[in-house]
This record gives sequence, structure tokens and C-alpha cells, in this order.
Amino acid sequence: MVKDVMKIAAVQMVSAPVPEQNFIAARRLVAQAAQQGAQLVLLPEYWPVMGMHESDKAGYAEQETDAGPIQRCMSDIAREHRIWLIGGTLPMVSPEAGKVLNTTLVFNPDGERISRYDKIHLFSFTKGDESYEESRTIVPGSTVATFDAPFGKVGLSVCYDLRFPELYRAMGDCALIVVPAAFTYTTGKAHWEVLLRARAIENQCYVLAAAQGGLHPNGRRTWGHSMLIDPWGEVKTVLAEGEGVVIGDIEPHHLMRIRENLPALTHRKL
Amino acid sequence: MVKDVMKIAAVQMVSAPVPEQNFIAARRLVAQAAQQGAQLVLLPEYWPVMGMHESDKAGYAEQETDAGPIQRCMSDIAREHRIWLIGGTLPMVSPEAGKVLNTTLVFNPDGERISRYDKIHLFSFTKGDESYEESRTIVPGSTVATFDAPFGKVGLSVCYDLRFPELYRAMGDCALIVVPAAFTYTTGKAHWEVLLRARAIENQCYVLAAAQGGLHPNGRRTWGHSMLIDPWGEVKTVLAEGEGVVIGDIEPHHLMRIRENLPALTHRKL
Repeated sequence: MVKDVMKIAAVQMVSAPVPEQNFIAARRLVAQAAQQGAQLVLLPEYWPVMGMHESDKAGYAEQETDAGPIQRCMSDIAREHRIWLIGGTLPMVSPEAGKVLNTTLVFNPDGERISRYDKIHLFSFTKGDESYEESRTIVPGSTVATFDAPFGKVGLSVCYDLRFPELYRAMGDCALIVVPAAFTYTTGKAHWEVLLRARAIENQCYVLAAAQGGLHPNGRRTWGHSMLIDPWGEVKTVLAEGEGVVIGDIEPHHLMRIRENLPALTHRKL
Repeated sequence: MVKDVMKIAAVQMVSAPVPEQNFIAARRLVAQAAQQGAQLVLLPEYWPVMGMHESDKAGYAEQETDAGPIQRCMSDIAREHRIWLIGGTLPMVSPEAGKVLNTTLVFNPDGERISRYDKIHLFSFTKGDESYEESRTIVPGSTVATFDAPFGKVGLSVCYDLRFPELYRAMGDCALIVVPAAFTYTTGKAHWEVLLRARAIENQCYVLAAAQGGLHPNGRRTWGHSMLIDPWGEVKTVLAEGEGVVIGDIEPHHLMRIRENLPALTHRKL
């Protein structure tokens, strides 16, 4: 079946400490992307809460059964622009008191929630003054998740998941992999682009990555470099730092041609 | 246990059509590496036979039980320089008439064969005039292989295997992954470095890649760019094209520090 080209976009943010400010920024940036023709838009990791202190995030965790302001905001945006919205991540209530799940929710153009992924791999890093330990505030998910967009299957992952190639293999054959993220400046500079490109090449699919990118009010500095990569591993568009949108095409013909020329996905043995 | 630094090297070749010429080149290049202090040396894929036509390679296939001139050459070189020699690949007799296994043999400093890996993933590629189909002449292996060097475990892979991250996960925790290869110019330019760096980053280990690099008498053009990459994904040394040696250090302390700072290998979930 031949499928049509679709324009897709990633929103880069430098999230503020207050969710309401981030709602306004997200609405504005997604509107920009939609005006440029994007029919699928990806927000970055923790876009409503990234600017606040770790310990405050749990206070904004939402329930799936009783949508809070973050979910309502995303549903509204998707419906308003008639787009697929992959909502970066938000904190969702977890079974452990004081901890959350770091969750991607996906909304269709009717504003309906159609998929959910809870981040599986939790980051920890220590080097000199820099130190992170996500498991202090986050409970990991355990289920691989994908959804069907008009151009094919979309695989969901979040930030640190990018270091684990087996997650992407477990998704099966995707046309697009998304990576909402908030890589640190240090690890982002060293590893972000090379890992994104490797996932595109080895899975022969598009990779869309939406990052936090800049200096946050809580003192964290994120790497940015939101980008769209094609199934041959070429970076089609990138935004280094600061708020903004990267936008480009999913071309199903291009993807099929690459897989015909180099049928690597049919050569898996292990 | 604290282990010492060891110098390791990859030999880059532009193999000639006649094995005897390649024996001379390999001896000369490994001697160069050994003189610079290398204690482990990697040869490129099909170093004795890469310059001849595909259909002629089977005529040089060797048996494991009755070592032929290629195996004797490698054993001699290892013993002469008292080094670990990872013998790129050579054609080995297969169960299918007219086809071979594409095999890495490893020799210890006494010249004894201590490990064997038969290439698992077979390359095929078609684009315009360029066309390759390794399964016409090669029978795939099916067994993951590693060996123990003084600094830790070494994982064996060959060329096209590089596109399959699950192979490297199946090796377990290696200090070094080796990739003897003969990437085409087209796929090498697009994918070689990014995939090598990704394997180093995601497996937090050194990657040593020995390539064929130049225009071969049989008309093939290979990408070259033999290189050593550290466990943080940094290219430490690289040779673009032509015969030569790349050399650098395995530093077990550096590897351990990276794994302590960012304990990603302990975070695998799938």
C-alpha cells in the first residue's frame, strides 16, 4: 500500500518553573508547527514540569482516569489543530508514594488519548558536580508501546531509553521512532546525535527527537538539538538551543526504497 | 582487579588479487604495529582474498583441522611478535559446495588458535550499478563468539554484523569489540563511523575496526577509516584510506570510570 507524505514536527522548549507558562509556550509552538503544515507534533520530555525542582514534580502528577490540566491542555491542542500530538512526557501517579511515572501520552486529531508509554530506563549519572538519579523520583514502566499513524507504526521511547537498542528492536518494524528528551549538556554533546542516527540506520526508519534545550530556572542545562533524521541516518533538520520547532517530511517511498536497496531488517538472526 | 594499559592496533589494507602479496603486506604492517608496541593486532575482513573475484575465493578456503597457508601465516606472525592476532577473516570450507564461511580466527602470542567466529549476518545491497549479495558465496555462521585477552573479554564481529545491535548485546559485557570490515564506499561514508561509535557508547567498551580502504584490483572501492573508539564514543585515531596502521591504548581505568559515572549496562531491562 502506498502511503502519502506527511509533515511532522518536534517542539523544543526550555521549560519554565510554572506549568501554566509551559502550557502557553507549548500552545504557541505547536500552533507554529501546525501553521507550517505539521500533522504530527512531538513535545519534549517533562515539558510541563522540567523547569521546577525534582521534588516538586510529584505534586503535578495526573491520573489516567481523571484527566488533569496537562492532559486537558494536550487534548485541546490536538483537537484544535486536528493533529496527532505525542505529548512528550508528564508525571503520572504511580503506585509508590512521592514517585511518579514519566509518561508519554498520544492524542489523535479528535483529541482522544490513544496510546501510553511509561519510560522504562531511568537515568543516573555522576561526574564531578553533576549528579542525577531518576529512580529517586520516578518509577520505571515495563511495557513497550507503539501506535498506528497514517504513514505507519510509531515507536515510543523517552530520553535515556535511547541508550538501549533492544527497546527499539522490541517495538517491531516502525516507520517512525520518537524520542522526547532532556539530555544533559555533557551527555548530549557526547552521545545524542550519534545514538539517534544509529537508531535510524539500524532500524531503517525516521527518528524524531524533541528536546529541552537551554539553561533552566532550576539550574539544569539541557543539550537541545531537536532533530528529524531519515531512514538512511541523515539529519534533515536540527535546532541547537532555545525554543522553537523543527519540521520535515515522512516520505514512505523513501523509506521503502532504502529497505529495498539494503534489506537489513530481513537479515536479523538473533 | 586492576588491569594494565595495553596498546592495540588495527591494520588497514587494500588487498591485492594474489594471497601471497597480501601475506607480505600483512607481515609488514603487523610488524610496524608491533614495533610501535601493539600487543594485540586486528587484520581487516578477507585480507588474503579481498582483491580477487568473489567466485575465486572458495578456491582458497581452508580447513580448521589441516591449517593452510593463511592460517600458518597468521600463526607465524602472532608467534614472531608475541602478540594476540585477530586474523580479520579468511574463507573457511563450508558444508555447501562452492561456498565458504567468512571466518575470524584468533591466535595467542604462542601462535595457537584460541577462538573462531563465523560471520552471522550476510550483506546484500543494490543501488544503481552497485550490487552485492554475500549469500551467493558465503554460508552464515550462527554462534556468538568472544575470547579473553589480558585486559578483559573481546567480542568478535565482522563488517555487516555492525548493523545488528543485538549481536553485541548477546556477547555480554566486553572490554573490546572488534570489527574487521570491508564496507563499500557508499555505505561506509553514510554509516560506518556512526554505527561504530554507537556500539562503543551503548556497550561502554572500546571498539577497534580494521578496514579495507581503497580501490581494489577487482574494481571494488572500500571505505577504509580504520579506527579505535573509546568507551565514551570518542574516535581516538583513524586512517582514512590506503594501507597503514592505527594504534592506541586500551585503558581499563578509563573504561571502569565511565561505567561508574554512567552505569548504563546495569540498567538494561529488556
